[in-house]
Amino acid sequence: MPERLGPPLEEPLFARLAIIGLGLIGSSIARGVKARRLAGAVVAVDRDEAVLDRVRALGLADEATADVAAGTAGADGVVLCIPLGAYGDVARRMTLAPGAVVSDVGSVKGSAIAQMQPHLPPGTALVPAHPVAGTEHSGPDAGFATLFHNRWCILTPPDGTDAAAIARIRAFWEALGSNVEIMDAGHHDLVLAITSHVPHLIAFNIVATAEDLETVTQSEVIKFSAGGFRDFTRIAASDPTMWRDVFLHNKDAVLEMLGRFNEDLAALARAIRWSDGEALFNLFARTRDIRRGIISSGQETPEPDFGRRRDDGA
Amino acid sequence: MPERLGPPLEEPLFARLAIIGLGLIGSSIARGVKARRLAGAVVAVDRDEAVLDRVRALGLADEATADVAAGTAGADGVVLCIPLGAYGDVARRMTLAPGAVVSDVGSVKGSAIAQMQPHLPPGTALVPAHPVAGTEHSGPDAGFATLFHNRWCILTPPDGTDAAAIARIRAFWEALGSNVEIMDAGHHDLVLAITSHVPHLIAFNIVATAEDLETVTQSEVIKFSAGGFRDFTRIAASDPTMWRDVFLHNKDAVLEMLGRFNEDLAALARAIRWSDGEALFNLFARTRDIRRGIISSGQETPEPDFGRRRDDGA
Repeated sequence: MPERLGPPLEEPLFARLAIIGLGLIGSSIARGVKARRLAGAVVAVDRDEAVLDRVRALGLADEATADVAAGTAGADGVVLCIPLGAYGDVARRMTLAPGAVVSDVGSVKGSAIAQMQPHLPPGTALVPAHPVAGTEHSGPDAGFATLFHNRWCILTPPDGTDAAAIARIRAFWEALGSNVEIMDAGHHDLVLAITSHVPHLIAFNIVATAEDLETVTQSEVIKFSAGGFRDFTRIAASDPTMWRDVFLHNKDAVLEMLGRFNEDLAALARAIRWSDGEALFNLFARTRDIRRGIISSGQETPEPDFGRRRDDGA
Repeated sequence: MPERLGPPLEEPLFARLAIIGLGLIGSSIARGVKARRLAGAVVAVDRDEAVLDRVRALGLADEATADVAAGTAGADGVVLCIPLGAYGDVARRMTLAPGAVVSDVGSVKGSAIAQMQPHLPPGTALVPAHPVAGTEHSGPDAGFATLFHNRWCILTPPDGTDAAAIARIRAFWEALGSNVEIMDAGHHDLVLAITSHVPHLIAFNIVATAEDLETVTQSEVIKFSAGGFRDFTRIAASDPTMWRDVFLHNKDAVLEMLGRFNEDLAALARAIRWSDGEALFNLFARTRDIRRGIISSGQETPEPDFGRRRDDGA
């Protein structure tokens, strides 16, 4: 049964919404905005002409331009959906009128705020957002309107942000199907370091380690990947530019969480070396609870093996 | 479209097949054997009376017993589907007649051979097998007949093993839908260390690291797990006894592969600390190929995010 968003709003939340960056996330937002009529008009801004062509062909926006200044002029809402490394440059080129609300979807909020805030004129509001949702695919064709459905979206408004602006961005994400939580940017960056950034880092890492082996061929790695490895290749197939920027912009929290991961892994390696079966069993036995929590909270499917296979009943 | 096994064989491969251990793998074999009539009679052997009750209730075997000696007496085929730590004890108690073929499904083949071989009487053959298939669920109710369909099964017969016995075990796994490859046991243990054992170890590890944090709550880890973490919790939900034994019985290869993983991870951490974006990008960009290989070889579904979500077309 496909998930469905609600009906179009009678009164759009924004008169003119500029979406900057029409990749997986930006194009999914554009689809959701259109489906629920969250904006009177949508302007798609992307520096890549090939992306703009796809935006036009897919009918994702009312206007499409490579010009940040023109695209944001007159917008009462702007959402940056670009790699973190491009925030400062794009924010500098935006032309915002008082009353405009600026948001984003970046995975690191401290850096997002630090990069955008200096460029926002008085009378505008900054409400950073991070929808914790995605797939391993990239680009405007990979997006879909229900991507954010039943996923969490974290807002990290700086102290003193206009309450009405926060309420508008909250309503926006709730209309896209998300549950919204408000959090301090620094705490967000710590939480996501362990739930997203370090998992991606070790997934990228093990795929590269496997590729570089001289005793095991790449064909063997591929053939026998169903033993666990292939799960890691999914997230290691994520967009390299986006992830490079995540690590560069959340350095402290990632290195802190990675340090803890490494300490724990060293203890496990020691238990293996010294044949401490009890230590291994005890650790392996306690990790099932957290998965049960993830399934019962609706953040994961309960089907075995992600429902990859089906039982023929035999 | 559900996957289907072929029709029942006209001539079973075994007159009397003993399956020892009726967990996920053993019960899946029992279902496949029944569906394709690979044995004249199936004897289920399990030390757990609760499992035997489920075997009887599910109709998985013709006979069910906790007695290894009685269960294997008169069998011309035996398959061990038990944790590696129990091999020696079970092999010692088997009562085999000449002509019997003994196999197993263990994830470490060097140890499997070393533990079983001393207990096999003359005239019997040992053809160890490892079906590279599974789910995170355990027990006789978790099994299904198509679990092995289009998965690889690796046979590691010791030098000098009777060719007819190898052919019989090959035919057995092909009838269950697997592709069969023959490999040296030592090489198998190295390949699986990187494609299965180390991935499981780091998945167990990161779930435990996340659980132990004092700055991030367990409820936050669960809520925001869709950023990548939840993929790791699937394999970290696998059977703790089985996995304890895998690490204890494949110590050298696991520590070798883990050492390489750690070296590569240290280089990545250093690139993050020194803001070497180029090194990060180059590594992240090259890991996509291997996933494409896994998908095109049929070992993985191409659907984004494991097909967890569906597009409503909006």
